[in-house]
Amino acid sequence: MTMIDDTLAAIDADAGPALDRLFDFLRIPSVSASPAHFADCDRAADWLVAELGAIGFEAAKHPTEGRPMVVGRIKAARRDSPHVLFYGHYDVQPPDPLDLWRSPPFEPKLEQGARGERIVARGASDDKGQLMTFLEACRAFQKFGGPPCAITVLFEGEEETGSPSLPAFLAANAKGLKADVALVCDTGMWNPTTPAITTTLRGMVADEVTLTGANRDLHSGIYGSLAVNPIHVLTRILGALHDANGAVALPGFYDGVEELPEEIREQWAGLEFDSAAFLGDVGLTTPAGERGRTPLEQVWSRPTCEVNGISGGYAGEGIKTVLPAKASAKVSFRLVGKQNPERIVQSFRAFVTSRLPPDVKAAFVGQPGSPAITLPIRNEALRRARRALEAEWGKPAALVGCGGSIPIVGAFKRDLNMDSLLVGFALDDDAMHSPNEKYERSSFHKGARSWARILAALAA
Amino acid sequence: MTMIDDTLAAIDADAGPALDRLFDFLRIPSVSASPAHFADCDRAADWLVAELGAIGFEAAKHPTEGRPMVVGRIKAARRDSPHVLFYGHYDVQPPDPLDLWRSPPFEPKLEQGARGERIVARGASDDKGQLMTFLEACRAFQKFGGPPCAITVLFEGEEETGSPSLPAFLAANAKGLKADVALVCDTGMWNPTTPAITTTLRGMVADEVTLTGANRDLHSGIYGSLAVNPIHVLTRILGALHDANGAVALPGFYDGVEELPEEIREQWAGLEFDSAAFLGDVGLTTPAGERGRTPLEQVWSRPTCEVNGISGGYAGEGIKTVLPAKASAKVSFRLVGKQNPERIVQSFRAFVTSRLPPDVKAAFVGQPGSPAITLPIRNEALRRARRALEAEWGKPAALVGCGGSIPIVGAFKRDLNMDSLLVGFALDDDAMHSPNEKYERSSFHKGARSWARILAALAA
Repeated sequence: MTMIDDTLAAIDADAGPALDRLFDFLRIPSVSASPAHFADCDRAADWLVAELGAIGFEAAKHPTEGRPMVVGRIKAARRDSPHVLFYGHYDVQPPDPLDLWRSPPFEPKLEQGARGERIVARGASDDKGQLMTFLEACRAFQKFGGPPCAITVLFEGEEETGSPSLPAFLAANAKGLKADVALVCDTGMWNPTTPAITTTLRGMVADEVTLTGANRDLHSGIYGSLAVNPIHVLTRILGALHDANGAVALPGFYDGVEELPEEIREQWAGLEFDSAAFLGDVGLTTPAGERGRTPLEQVWSRPTCEVNGISGGYAGEGIKTVLPAKASAKVSFRLVGKQNPERIVQSFRAFVTSRLPPDVKAAFVGQPGSPAITLPIRNEALRRARRALEAEWGKPAALVGCGGSIPIVGAFKRDLNMDSLLVGFALDDDAMHSPNEKYERSSFHKGARSWARILAALAA
Repeated sequence: MTMIDDTLAAIDADAGPALDRLFDFLRIPSVSASPAHFADCDRAADWLVAELGAIGFEAAKHPTEGRPMVVGRIKAARRDSPHVLFYGHYDVQPPDPLDLWRSPPFEPKLEQGARGERIVARGASDDKGQLMTFLEACRAFQKFGGPPCAITVLFEGEEETGSPSLPAFLAANAKGLKADVALVCDTGMWNPTTPAITTTLRGMVADEVTLTGANRDLHSGIYGSLAVNPIHVLTRILGALHDANGAVALPGFYDGVEELPEEIREQWAGLEFDSAAFLGDVGLTTPAGERGRTPLEQVWSRPTCEVNGISGGYAGEGIKTVLPAKASAKVSFRLVGKQNPERIVQSFRAFVTSRLPPDVKAAFVGQPGSPAITLPIRNEALRRARRALEAEWGKPAALVGCGGSIPIVGAFKRDLNMDSLLVGFALDDDAMHSPNEKYERSSFHKGARSWARILAALAA
């Protein structure tokens, strides 16, 4: 037997106590959005510090302006091993609405589900269960002289409230947190039997435009058609943001957007994404975006322009014949490849201002943007992790994209110049952020085994 | 001396007492919008009943669901005379903001203005001063055997709150109110030295559209571009409502819109409307509507389509990357000539529904509409009134349009099948609905003389 076989056997033998530990962790109602639970967040951080100490880490709780950070460090069994930074969060979403839970959200229990036993509690999947898969792998290695990689763990307690304290903490501790690669366990499997590595995350940038015409709201009977109506101007401009093929019409918008590598295209085609079910779930039947792109391409690898909000004039009951002085819209762009957030905003603003008729002024309020994140598919860590996952699950890990962004991944890249390997074991039906959140017991158990294999593979 | 010369001389001789009477009327704070002033509205109605009685009318106050109506009747000096219905309102706008008044709004006073003395008080112009011009003319005729026309007067007390009790009152009293022509004194002069008769009022119809895509708001990172965005669809549709020349693009929209009669076109050209000043007053420089139409045509005789309100998605602070399920707009149309309100709404709805992509549904909430009102310029009453005004003011009365609608005129046409002659002596700077409302003393005095001449001319 090799060391990895011993380690996996230890994880199997320890499955019962591992579940007890996760249940202990889940019983702490560490809801970061609620001041009533700030003390519980502290308790969750203390619990992690104790757990880390029990498996050989040097660990401590670090105060911030908000909830504390937990940082732990352990050396590798061998000297020249790679160094990884593992990220997770101990805070959870509020459990509301409470009356929709079948059992109390902070009293974890095992339920029998369609795919076997599952763990039901707030945080079971997001992110306490996922986080503990990694710690259980570390625990198993302890029995055989320590982990194959040097490991730093960083657990925050404000992920569900936008991580307000994280940027300053990363900046102040950059040197101590920098590693060869970051491991982030906050994503999912492709399906219950197929593991996945998320290799692209779309970036985002947003802008808000307000058009102003007259110096006050006018009576449409007196000024109608003679005085410019900013709603007309705004709708004309926004209505031209997409061309007849659904592509974004901003000049230069597709600069830096690359076509999918052939092997990713083939791999995605093989995933047999059921877009009919995906859309049907929200009452839709027809992909609405760029023609000639598969649904998976559209959500994972193509940039978007969406108007997230529009307002102007009278919005109350009935009709008021006002000719409004102002109209506004909030617009956001999902970015891919090497699209530059600042240039996208500049192009949007030029698009708007070049279309303004006389007497209409545009004012813009920008938001900081972030570029897309791409883990190169020929990256060595990715290749090794993929083989390790295949060994555990019996099929190749899907290389998937993510239509949204995971801010910590951008921060690791930007502030610590470090790529992230995104591996997680959540499933689409885990009900994260919803009542009756669950984590498959197989996700928990095979997740721990997966991390053991990945750590071994990274050090091989 | 003819009878009309005697009557005019009597008006001149009675100018001081006439002003005292108007001041008495203005001291009653008959604010129909405020329950605290409902008793004052009753007092104003009683005051009018007494005044009418004093000048030979049979008059009474009639209860309604809201403020009372006052109806008065007097026979003509001669038997075969025409019968006119005069309409006015005794209620006034709230005086707020009070601190912007130079003197208390219900303590009328004479001020020296650029054009001579003026009467300052809430209601001085709208509509107590205008209403009293007519009663003072009637008073003068009483000294010479009675008015040349049979007269019914109808004074309401809810004009400033949308006349909620008027339709039922007209319906219940149609027979008693029907006359050969209605006289409505709620409009203005073209300028301080040029009288005007308003011969066209634009009609109005409005509609509200709500587009629905998915069955709930979606996350733009997950569904962006794959799921249809109703704001995009709505802006594309509304942005196409006007063509490149500013004309409304709805099929059939201009059915029933007639070109201006040549004599009206020439007359309007002679009015030398200062569109630069009109637009400059609200911070604009450039007419925005249909190309090839003069500014006066645009506001008086061309139909419009204005989006009065638009809403959808997130409207709070900052950005929320929502892909909204719904987007709505309120649209209204000013109508001219023989445009049919129902057909315009049908065309709008067809325009919207024919442009919907798959998965987007449109729901509409309509509002009752009213067609435009046109007094035929060859109408005999109009011709006579115009000559009478020219005799008083020394120049021809301008035949003007009104971009808005005056509901009572539509009601007289619809419910009593009666045309209205719209003559008034207000000026653009009268500050109706604003602090320091005023009425030129010359408007009051020459207004009374004008009505005397008009009544004589109608009976000639």
